[in-house]
Amino acid sequence: MLKAGVVGATGYTGIELLRLLVAHEQVDICVATSDTEKGQYIKDVLPSLLQLSPDIKFSAHDTPELRQCDVVFFATPHATAMYKAPNLLDAGLKVIDLSADFRLQDMAQWQRWYGVEHAAPELLKTAVYGLPEINRQQIAKADLVANPGCYPTAIILGFLPLLERNCVDLDTLVADAKSGVSGTGRKVAVNVLFSEINENFKAYGLSGHRHLPEICQVFSGYAKQTITPVFVPHLVPMIRGIFATLYAHLSQHNIDVNELYRLRYDSEPFVDVVSADCQLDTASVRGTNMCRIAVHQLPDSDKLVILSVIDNLVKGAAGQAIQNMNIMFNLPETMGLNWSAIFP
Amino acid sequence: MLKAGVVGATGYTGIELLRLLVAHEQVDICVATSDTEKGQYIKDVLPSLLQLSPDIKFSAHDTPELRQCDVVFFATPHATAMYKAPNLLDAGLKVIDLSADFRLQDMAQWQRWYGVEHAAPELLKTAVYGLPEINRQQIAKADLVANPGCYPTAIILGFLPLLERNCVDLDTLVADAKSGVSGTGRKVAVNVLFSEINENFKAYGLSGHRHLPEICQVFSGYAKQTITPVFVPHLVPMIRGIFATLYAHLSQHNIDVNELYRLRYDSEPFVDVVSADCQLDTASVRGTNMCRIAVHQLPDSDKLVILSVIDNLVKGAAGQAIQNMNIMFNLPETMGLNWSAIFP
Amino acid sequence: MLKAGVVGATGYTGIELLRLLVAHEQVDICVATSDTEKGQYIKDVLPSLLQLSPDIKFSAHDTPELRQCDVVFFATPHATAMYKAPNLLDAGLKVIDLSADFRLQDMAQWQRWYGVEHAAPELLKTAVYGLPEINRQQIAKADLVANPGCYPTAIILGFLPLLERNCVDLDTLVADAKSGVSGTGRKVAVNVLFSEINENFKAYGLSGHRHLPEICQVFSGYAKQTITPVFVPHLVPMIRGIFATLYAHLSQHNIDVNELYRLRYDSEPFVDVVSADCQLDTASVRGTNMCRIAVHQLPDSDKLVILSVIDNLVKGAAGQAIQNMNIMFNLPETMGLNWSAIFP
Amino acid sequence: MLKAGVVGATGYTGIELLRLLVAHEQVDICVATSDTEKGQYIKDVLPSLLQLSPDIKFSAHDTPELRQCDVVFFATPHATAMYKAPNLLDAGLKVIDLSADFRLQDMAQWQRWYGVEHAAPELLKTAVYGLPEINRQQIAKADLVANPGCYPTAIILGFLPLLERNCVDLDTLVADAKSGVSGTGRKVAVNVLFSEINENFKAYGLSGHRHLPEICQVFSGYAKQTITPVFVPHLVPMIRGIFATLYAHLSQHNIDVNELYRLRYDSEPFVDVVSADCQLDTASVRGTNMCRIAVHQLPDSDKLVILSVIDNLVKGAAGQAIQNMNIMFNLPETMGLNWSAIFP
Repeated sequence: MLKAGVVGATGYTGIELLRLLVAHEQVDICVATSDTEKGQYIKDVLPSLLQLSPDIKFSAHDTPELRQCDVVFFATPHATAMYKAPNLLDAGLKVIDLSADFRLQDMAQWQRWYGVEHAAPELLKTAVYGLPEINRQQIAKADLVANPGCYPTAIILGFLPLLERNCVDLDTLVADAKSGVSGTGRKVAVNVLFSEINENFKAYGLSGHRHLPEICQVFSGYAKQTITPVFVPHLVPMIRGIFATLYAHLSQHNIDVNELYRLRYDSEPFVDVVSADCQLDTASVRGTNMCRIAVHQLPDSDKLVILSVIDNLVKGAAGQAIQNMNIMFNLPETMGLNWSAIFP
Repeated sequence: MLKAGVVGATGYTGIELLRLLVAHEQVDICVATSDTEKGQYIKDVLPSLLQLSPDIKFSAHDTPELRQCDVVFFATPHATAMYKAPNLLDAGLKVIDLSADFRLQDMAQWQRWYGVEHAAPELLKTAVYGLPEINRQQIAKADLVANPGCYPTAIILGFLPLLERNCVDLDTLVADAKSGVSGTGRKVAVNVLFSEINENFKAYGLSGHRHLPEICQVFSGYAKQTITPVFVPHLVPMIRGIFATLYAHLSQHNIDVNELYRLRYDSEPFVDVVSADCQLDTASVRGTNMCRIAVHQLPDSDKLVILSVIDNLVKGAAGQAIQNMNIMFNLPETMGLNWSAIFP
Repeated sequence: MLKAGVVGATGYTGIELLRLLVAHEQVDICVATSDTEKGQYIKDVLPSLLQLSPDIKFSAHDTPELRQCDVVFFATPHATAMYKAPNLLDAGLKVIDLSADFRLQDMAQWQRWYGVEHAAPELLKTAVYGLPEINRQQIAKADLVANPGCYPTAIILGFLPLLERNCVDLDTLVADAKSGVSGTGRKVAVNVLFSEINENFKAYGLSGHRHLPEICQVFSGYAKQTITPVFVPHLVPMIRGIFATLYAHLSQHNIDVNELYRLRYDSEPFVDVVSADCQLDTASVRGTNMCRIAVHQLPDSDKLVILSVIDNLVKGAAGQAIQNMNIMFNLPETMGLNWSAIFP
Repeated sequence: MLKAGVVGATGYTGIELLRLLVAHEQVDICVATSDTEKGQYIKDVLPSLLQLSPDIKFSAHDTPELRQCDVVFFATPHATAMYKAPNLLDAGLKVIDLSADFRLQDMAQWQRWYGVEHAAPELLKTAVYGLPEINRQQIAKADLVANPGCYPTAIILGFLPLLERNCVDLDTLVADAKSGVSGTGRKVAVNVLFSEINENFKAYGLSGHRHLPEICQVFSGYAKQTITPVFVPHLVPMIRGIFATLYAHLSQHNIDVNELYRLRYDSEPFVDVVSADCQLDTASVRGTNMCRIAVHQLPDSDKLVILSVIDNLVKGAAGQAIQNMNIMFNLPETMGLNWSAIFP
């Protein structure tokens, strides 16, 4: 049994980690930290975790118990893991960071987007970007995995076969992305109050969203040049789910795009390429680690519309982190993640 | 034209006051205050107020402009109006307080429920409880009106004909009340975030809700004894609306309860007694000042179920305040309040 | 491995049965019927069932494959199972009916509420009412289980310790119940369209809801007299969840009501009595088979307020059916039902 | 006073027409038809219409009373107005059709998209497309106005200044549009049940939405060539609102796009160009006839993102119809439409 710790276990991502880990047959949750709830019984604070032993309490973030774990997940805001991960790595643990601290390889760029100095710049180069569909081998050997953001997961998986095949006009890439509100986290703010969100739809982050450089880094790697797709995030009056509608012009003809996607993802356990006429929705992946993709080519045209949906808290965060853990510890990749979606 | 001021104009009640006042043909909005937004153009902060002149800015709470008004509305948290209203009253203005500062006549009780010392206890006796259906004459002569709470408005109007007629067993009164989330105001808190409220239903305030003493005060006045109905508030995943399901046992037989209600409210412009088999809902009063009531008597029984619905921000707050203003200034009582509900 | 069949597998209850059964380690889903979707691959129709084998198709309702099952669940509208269950029972199968066909023992009453003649009246006496908390022994021996309605499950479990102890004034029982919309099923009707439900709250069924006789039957059994509690169902703008707020006056003093409930439910795996000051909500049981109950006694009073919450599709339908199956086949009662709730 | 009739007054668009017309100072609602509710009092069927006289009943669709009106609105499904409008026009009335019957000038194309033969093809050429911002002069003289679809209204107004100025690469136009569910109308279908829509987000109509030829017709008129923008509609779990996110590449440099939009719409009463950094949302136009637009140009790029929001039932249907009526009858264009949005 793996001994797992979760730092920041009362945010939405941390709660989802606990929900999934408690049902994972090869994991014992040894530590869960919360600075606001430390000393409280977890089940009193989070009554939804019905399976959890009633005896476990929240620890403080700096508890030495973390060092007795095999793997520690950081589900904290940015600029937390970068201070604490180095010590744990030195002690021989593996670390999976669900925040943004190790996602960008370029320190200067990280500091520009996050506005603080990076505390562990040397780790930026060794951390592995934890998208199994592109980095499975490196993840298996990694000590530190930077779990991708939720938007990048949906958008990269949606564009990936085109980028790998180098068959799109890179100047035409548009990612119109819609997210449930849990993606903004559990911190309080007027603009995520129920009365501001329900019966409302809005765009945000047009002047620059922090997930953009992460997308650009991956895209530019494939393109061998700097690529900046147009990326507009929106907020949907629902809790969970990301729906990315992606647009591109093919630069090559005679490509069977659906075949391309099907072949690329055929052996991927958590990517499901559906038929082009399928009415994709976020409900069909709610609570699951699945990314579902549909590819449409407009008739008599080189224009593509690709739909990519995930649950932002699972494939976009906690589920992907466990998928990475499974890979890092040589467990079956789908262990603890093989659930159906709740519908309705 | 009446010159009106609104203190605390960026909360939900204040915004609703501005929406209704700007469409009122006998009112000029002269001042709107907000300590957080002072100096900003109102239309930049509140783009929903399409009718408002683009030139008006928010003032600070202590602006001397307030004294040039004819009437000032306080849409502030409790323990604000009690400090500021006395000066305005001394200057000859009329004041309508939408907070709780002047709703209870008993100072000791007010201080017990609100936890602070009352700053203007002498006004507790002269303030008129602004429920037009019971206090229309006093409101017409009042300088200071204490606008009722949202739950008390729905619950008192629902039980009123029975209390006046003295025909219920007072020990059997139950008020099971459900409110939209805007009733909790616009202050930030984890438990009113969208992700905590949507797809969720909860009770709260079982250990004592501040609207209970207000209800008791009115009920006890009719009963000539201290009455404490059972009152359980709940939070519904919707923005607006109060639905009160009221239970009581008749203490007299041979009463036509529907006739009793119909006669009582026949001349009330903002109370609509519908037939017992009507499927009452909150949507039919959304955005309006109407209270709709249905009265059911169980077959072969003395048990009553009364349904009472309002929009908490209108008849439960801003609309009722304007109804009171109309009465205080001898305007037609329905002026500026005669709208249909938006549906769907 | 048990071979299970689901008749009516495209309604919300049927889908939930499939979701839970597919994760049950001792069950093989052999047949799932749907008259509208027969011949279609289940995964094409219900993409949320990610765990299901892609090869299974929907059968027609009258497929002979059903007779090869060990247990058949009916998730059909009323007046379906009563025609089909007798043959299956004769063939030696066990049947769990999630519809209302076998819930009432009195045929005349059943016909009055459901408006059709009963096709298998002899089974009304032998069917066991499948609420494990009161009928566990009989369920273990039963061939035909009548799975309780969702409202009755929440309301009976909420009042049960008081009825067993005979310590309440039976004339004071009030059940103010609120349900998510999935409780109305998947049949189309204007009044359950999204645009009619969202931002709306309504009461319904005041002239008589079909779950009332079911509640009365159980209550009257304990009271040794005919008991008709006041029961008002409401519709909440959410998909899942029942929240029952129950009112009663104690008829005995010196009872520690919380202790009474705690002792009664101490060994029940799916009833959780929480402390009186807990803010119960439906989200904490979403997707689970748990009933959570809080008991409040008003200060200096004999008045009780009991809160009882379930997920209507799980403990109120599919989960309870599987709990019954586990008991009938001598499996651990919690097998396949031991999940945490999804939050948020 | 204008005498107005509404054919199809129990759909969402018809109800919204009644709500707006009843508050219009120069209109008397003389007839409202509904084949399902004929003979019923309107207020019994639509209790939200609090201002309406309690004496008006629904008429049948073919009532001769319609001919006594000055103007008749058709709020019916397609293929209804085309049968009834000719007679009314012959009788000298003016007709505003909110359905699709007269929106396309090309009969063959209309028949291809709507699958029936057109009953009044001669009117396709004389009907005026009722988007006041482009056709105000023709609307003023028209007898038959084809009120635009909701998506086309938001999308055309969003792209219009660019098309008029001929400064975009026409091959790069993308309209990613999101609509509230009321846009699908009030007809029953499984996929618009509350339980299917809430907590869900989906795309639809990828194989071709009926609003596309309407958009193409207008765009092609400006471009002097056949233009088919990419158009992907989505369904948002909210009742009202359209949010169109529009993408295009400029084909000319040195254009101040914000200035272009501001000048174009400066005198338009119902188009509001906001600053590029404004966080546009649908709530700010809920219940109003306003279209709000924000224009973003990506830094150091010729790429544009234009946001365009309306209320689909007002500017996208009933409000625009009344705006057209005002123009046709030489009333002030904003009469009866000058309301603030309800927020929250």
